[in-house]
Amino acid sequence: MIPSAHIGVSGLGVMGRNLARNFARHGYTVAVHNRSASRTRLLVEEFGAEGTFVAAETAEDFVAALERPRRLVVMVQAGAATDAVIAEFAGLLEPGDMIIDGGNAHFADTRRRESALRAHGVHFVGAGISGGEEGALDGPSIMVGGPDESYAVLGPMFETVSAKVDGEPCAAHIGTDGAGHFVKMVHNGIEYADMQLIAEAYDLLRQVAGYTPAEIADVFRGWNQGRLGSYLTEITAEVLAHTDATTGEPFVDVVADAAGQKGTGRWTVQTALDLAAPVTAIAQATFARAASGQSELRAAYRGLPGGTPVPLSRTEAARFTSQVEHALYASKVIAYDQGWKMIQDAGAEYGWKIDLAAVAGIWRGGCIIRAAFLDRIRAAYTADPGLVSLLGEEGFAREIGDAQVPWREIVASAARRGIPVPAFSAALAHYDTLRADRLPAALLQGQRDYFGAHTYRRTDRPGSFHTHWADPNRPETAN
Amino acid sequence: MIPSAHIGVSGLGVMGRNLARNFARHGYTVAVHNRSASRTRLLVEEFGAEGTFVAAETAEDFVAALERPRRLVVMVQAGAATDAVIAEFAGLLEPGDMIIDGGNAHFADTRRRESALRAHGVHFVGAGISGGEEGALDGPSIMVGGPDESYAVLGPMFETVSAKVDGEPCAAHIGTDGAGHFVKMVHNGIEYADMQLIAEAYDLLRQVAGYTPAEIADVFRGWNQGRLGSYLTEITAEVLAHTDATTGEPFVDVVADAAGQKGTGRWTVQTALDLAAPVTAIAQATFARAASGQSELRAAYRGLPGGTPVPLSRTEAARFTSQVEHALYASKVIAYDQGWKMIQDAGAEYGWKIDLAAVAGIWRGGCIIRAAFLDRIRAAYTADPGLVSLLGEEGFAREIGDAQVPWREIVASAARRGIPVPAFSAALAHYDTLRADRLPAALLQGQRDYFGAHTYRRTDRPGSFHTHWADPNRPETAN
Repeated sequence: MIPSAHIGVSGLGVMGRNLARNFARHGYTVAVHNRSASRTRLLVEEFGAEGTFVAAETAEDFVAALERPRRLVVMVQAGAATDAVIAEFAGLLEPGDMIIDGGNAHFADTRRRESALRAHGVHFVGAGISGGEEGALDGPSIMVGGPDESYAVLGPMFETVSAKVDGEPCAAHIGTDGAGHFVKMVHNGIEYADMQLIAEAYDLLRQVAGYTPAEIADVFRGWNQGRLGSYLTEITAEVLAHTDATTGEPFVDVVADAAGQKGTGRWTVQTALDLAAPVTAIAQATFARAASGQSELRAAYRGLPGGTPVPLSRTEAARFTSQVEHALYASKVIAYDQGWKMIQDAGAEYGWKIDLAAVAGIWRGGCIIRAAFLDRIRAAYTADPGLVSLLGEEGFAREIGDAQVPWREIVASAARRGIPVPAFSAALAHYDTLRADRLPAALLQGQRDYFGAHTYRRTDRPGSFHTHWADPNRPETAN
Repeated sequence: MIPSAHIGVSGLGVMGRNLARNFARHGYTVAVHNRSASRTRLLVEEFGAEGTFVAAETAEDFVAALERPRRLVVMVQAGAATDAVIAEFAGLLEPGDMIIDGGNAHFADTRRRESALRAHGVHFVGAGISGGEEGALDGPSIMVGGPDESYAVLGPMFETVSAKVDGEPCAAHIGTDGAGHFVKMVHNGIEYADMQLIAEAYDLLRQVAGYTPAEIADVFRGWNQGRLGSYLTEITAEVLAHTDATTGEPFVDVVADAAGQKGTGRWTVQTALDLAAPVTAIAQATFARAASGQSELRAAYRGLPGGTPVPLSRTEAARFTSQVEHALYASKVIAYDQGWKMIQDAGAEYGWKIDLAAVAGIWRGGCIIRAAFLDRIRAAYTADPGLVSLLGEEGFAREIGDAQVPWREIVASAARRGIPVPAFSAALAHYDTLRADRLPAALLQGQRDYFGAHTYRRTDRPGSFHTHWADPNRPETAN
């Protein structure tokens, strides 16, 4: 076999197949391979006309079909299947060749694999690919990890097949080893938070303002024209506007209200705990999904007393809607700020030099959280690459300032009326925690010293101190 | 050496030393061993008069000193040190012998170790020991995992050295393999939540009611006489009443307000995410500690606008204090309910038959969260061992009912005034989420089907469904 393919894709499930087609449509010769050869043949039969494919039945043929340095994209299930495929290919490769894992791997696995393959001179590139099957075909957002040398080769190819916004590609080199998969994970965590915030806004408009789903669809359509403009806002309007054909009821009323919470949302929160990065909006969103599926628990709580619903007049409802817009927007800024800070903290922990502006840039297209305000996030980190918080940027700070009364009113009103707003209130508590001059964590430190001699620090001098609580008048011990 | 010791303790740090002394004080002959023999000698020199110790310099001597079946308590650092000690002893033991890990191991490690040793006929018993150094000496709360056969032998010994409440021992067999360490982990998670709730109550009394730390100490002293009576309530009063000797200021004002969040609180939340068990109060408490230590982030947020503080009159402050008591109590019930449900879910996941009443029973003494209301929790699970939620018990349901107005007022008031109450509001949101007839999770499922073809369930018939969103009038697909 003549090594003619620019790139190879192994694993031709819907994501792998569409990514292979995307490369082929952009003029690349694409070697394709799958554990069962029938899928490989099917791809070439169905889509062969879209470009140049080289069908390979065996791993050996697949590797032999690739130009050097070889570029193999692995699109198989995360976990054991990925390890098996890597093991199979690794023996056939030469130093300088590149294995790209385009699946949803945990970044810790990517770090482990990269390190193992590096010992053999093979580059392992963990690439987070966002946008689902449609994105894979028409242009995803691609977060690429791995060494600089591989990005020099792969970058132009990824940028070519990625989504474009204002002519700019939605693909970038994030950092070494697991950085790409890490950032993809946080993307999904932010997606969880954004969806939960939207769900809470919907719930308030439904239960407090008394709007119908169709009316709320109109509200979201309006919001989509402004600073809340985003793919998720747009599809929320479409879901809410949809009428169920069978019953004639609003679609949202016939859907079971139990959501799944497997995978990357959960990983984000677990990893944030290791990093001590407070991502409370993401955590509350993840737990809200878990709670919705706890049917026994819901049955046990159902019917317990709640708040006092007071119907709003149409005028009051309109005012309430504007307050919800402020609360949603402010909470969203906090949720995104939590995600960016987590990426920043991970950069420090794992030695990644992550361009936070570039992360915002490549999320503007191809992925689920693409949104108008990512332009402003990008601008904020471009102006100050070391920005600790988005609220350090004047525009965001002003908007959060303007949102104070309505944001607080909405959280207060939800508490009084018994509408669950776990993510809205977590975002507000995060804001109030971080801006506080003094936190009651000081009391915690006193308690911990009391029961566990954990020691405390003082505000007036350095060192660790311990009070002898059995005899508190005895001078404290300094270490 | 004549095998005369009833039990052995290896690892004579402060916890191991005190536990060895505790056994000796209760009439057991205790073999003692430490990696560096000097500690062993020191223990016998200093405390030899308290009972009968057999000092062993080598692992061989230590094992030889023990009656069969041998009972070795390992009190070394969790992680690699534990594995090393187990490996050293395992080769010296015979089928039926027991290694007890009394350290703070992750329950997953305990499961792994138990399984490996079981293959050699050695019983591995993960025992969660709560109460710190004082508890280890005077009577801890002991949560014992491992097989029934080992508890038959070890149970009476653990029960003898444990704390006692009304004559009942605070030690129990929780379940097989990692169950003891699991429950100890959740204990610590609940401890995080309880401490954070107390901290938020303090913050409200300080900032809204305008009380001094000494006045708040009095409030907690009063609360300690009622349903909030607990070790943590009691020590909160003592910490708040303490005056710093150097400055003459309230102690709580000179302590740095940054708390650590390492270890078991974090593990609890990470594990809860795997179990889909919503432990939001514990999560918010863990993240609140993390946030308090994020000094860069706090510097970036400091000075941002907040709520409107309105000073309260003394009469209003007294009324406010009573509302805070309701809010604290209701939130605490929710936090404990979250912990118990997580234990229940883990029982189902790992095949543990956990007596939920016994868990409450052994936490009434010796451990940090010992509290008056654990008697009532025990009674609730004794009356109905399958109780899904504490709120299924009449008394708790009534109290939560009575707390509705004040609990909601406090959360609303904190939101308006800019006081961070992440755990109070998470507890309230949990309550409102679970008692809701319909959750906006239905909208989430619609969004997920829209962008990822994840499918949804319907309320009116079984199956999985997908709407063709590009052409929503096309009949939905049923799987």
